[in-house]
Amino acid sequence: MSDAEENPNLFPNIRFVLVETSHPGNIGAAARAMKNMGICRLVLVSPRDFPSNKAIWRSASAADVLEDAQVVDSLEEALAGCQLVIGTSARDRRIPWPMLDPKSCGQKVFQAQAADNEVAIVFGREAHGLKNEELQMCHFHVNIPTGKAYSSLNLAMAVQVLSYEILQAKLSGMPERTDDWDIEYASSDALEYFFEHLEKTLIEVGFHDPKTPRQLMTRLRRLFNRVRMDEMEVSILRGFLTAINRLKGS
Amino acid sequence: MSDAEENPNLFPNIRFVLVETSHPGNIGAAARAMKNMGICRLVLVSPRDFPSNKAIWRSASAADVLEDAQVVDSLEEALAGCQLVIGTSARDRRIPWPMLDPKSCGQKVFQAQAADNEVAIVFGREAHGLKNEELQMCHFHVNIPTGKAYSSLNLAMAVQVLSYEILQAKLSGMPERTDDWDIEYASSDALEYFFEHLEKTLIEVGFHDPKTPRQLMTRLRRLFNRVRMDEMEVSILRGFLTAINRLKGS
Repeated sequence: MSDAEENPNLFPNIRFVLVETSHPGNIGAAARAMKNMGICRLVLVSPRDFPSNKAIWRSASAADVLEDAQVVDSLEEALAGCQLVIGTSARDRRIPWPMLDPKSCGQKVFQAQAADNEVAIVFGREAHGLKNEELQMCHFHVNIPTGKAYSSLNLAMAVQVLSYEILQAKLSGMPERTDDWDIEYASSDALEYFFEHLEKTLIEVGFHDPKTPRQLMTRLRRLFNRVRMDEMEVSILRGFLTAINRLKGS
Repeated sequence: MSDAEENPNLFPNIRFVLVETSHPGNIGAAARAMKNMGICRLVLVSPRDFPSNKAIWRSASAADVLEDAQVVDSLEEALAGCQLVIGTSARDRRIPWPMLDPKSCGQKVFQAQAADNEVAIVFGREAHGLKNEELQMCHFHVNIPTGKAYSSLNLAMAVQVLSYEILQAKLSGMPERTDDWDIEYASSDALEYFFEHLEKTLIEVGFHDPKTPRQLMTRLRRLFNRVRMDEMEVSILRGFLTAINRLKGS
């Protein structure tokens, strides 16, 4: 296979997820930026204007990435099956989350996909980024350092920097971690079912009042996302919750 | 001074030079990308369409960078006074030039500006990049690695990646090299006068025939650019050339 025929998708386990993008030009520019770095799976959550000729024009020779893009209605759908989810974020969230810089993000993503994990990087709206509940669906957050005077990167530029660091991790000859964990990492959907089950149970036992939540679920999400649970661990905890539910007769 | 009032220009000795840019949108996007990373000096060599509302729109909150941009007619003018010049380039030039990757470019630029050197990074046309004679005015070339299947980055994206790596070099706490060199590095204009003088002299002594150049000047440019001569060295060599000229009675 000659260079020209090389498969453009160097990272079939990586998807980039753009949430409620306003400007189709940004979608096109993001597609080009991804493909330049060998990333070809694009998922769009409720884009305002797509498909769009403007997106195609800005994508240059990445129109195939746009054609193959998956359009979905919710972030949950976009993350189906993912075992590592990283959300882009400004630094100043009220509850700090495990935070990566772009380089360590690139390394973590590279190693996860090399271990056959499904990986998603999630990008928020041009004007408002990701909502708190979306950020809380992520294992890690990543922030691109900027000068203080003007910190708001264009969406497609953020896509470019994070894509660049993923390819850099590959080209720098990072060891593809031989992950000797015996069980698969739990998927995002399994985690979400677990969090629902957990919250329901916390309410049931009278520990959690959704009317005065005191960030309880936020802190629990941060905890369980940070450890990246495997399938068996999730199954054990859910068994425990079910046992508690039975006790309360629900 | 509060964060909001912080001087956006973290690198007053660095200028980004865009040569014959076709699309004003790219100029605006480049201005934003630079300012996000604390770089505010933009020089435009014969832009096709500037000033332009499209550039302003794409620059978002970097319209000041566009307003302050210097528009010139030639790359020589753009590089006046520069002591380190780095040109963006595809890898496949006939005569290899000292080549940097974006990270080492960021480090080299950071250290040079910290030692009060004037630094330029030069970006070529959207479709055709920099010409050979423009690349030969550079001390180093920098190439942004990509996947093989689609290697052509958008101009403003290249600006973003190289700006990002310059700020990264600063944030990573790189030592600002205490350059104990006793003489200032020669400026680009001084170097160009030297190359002119050298070529004239080579012709005069019958060593160089411009009709069959055999890449002689290219190789000499590469040599003298690579060593980054100081002002005294240039002055010594020019004295030597003048002595040769006198010998020939010119």
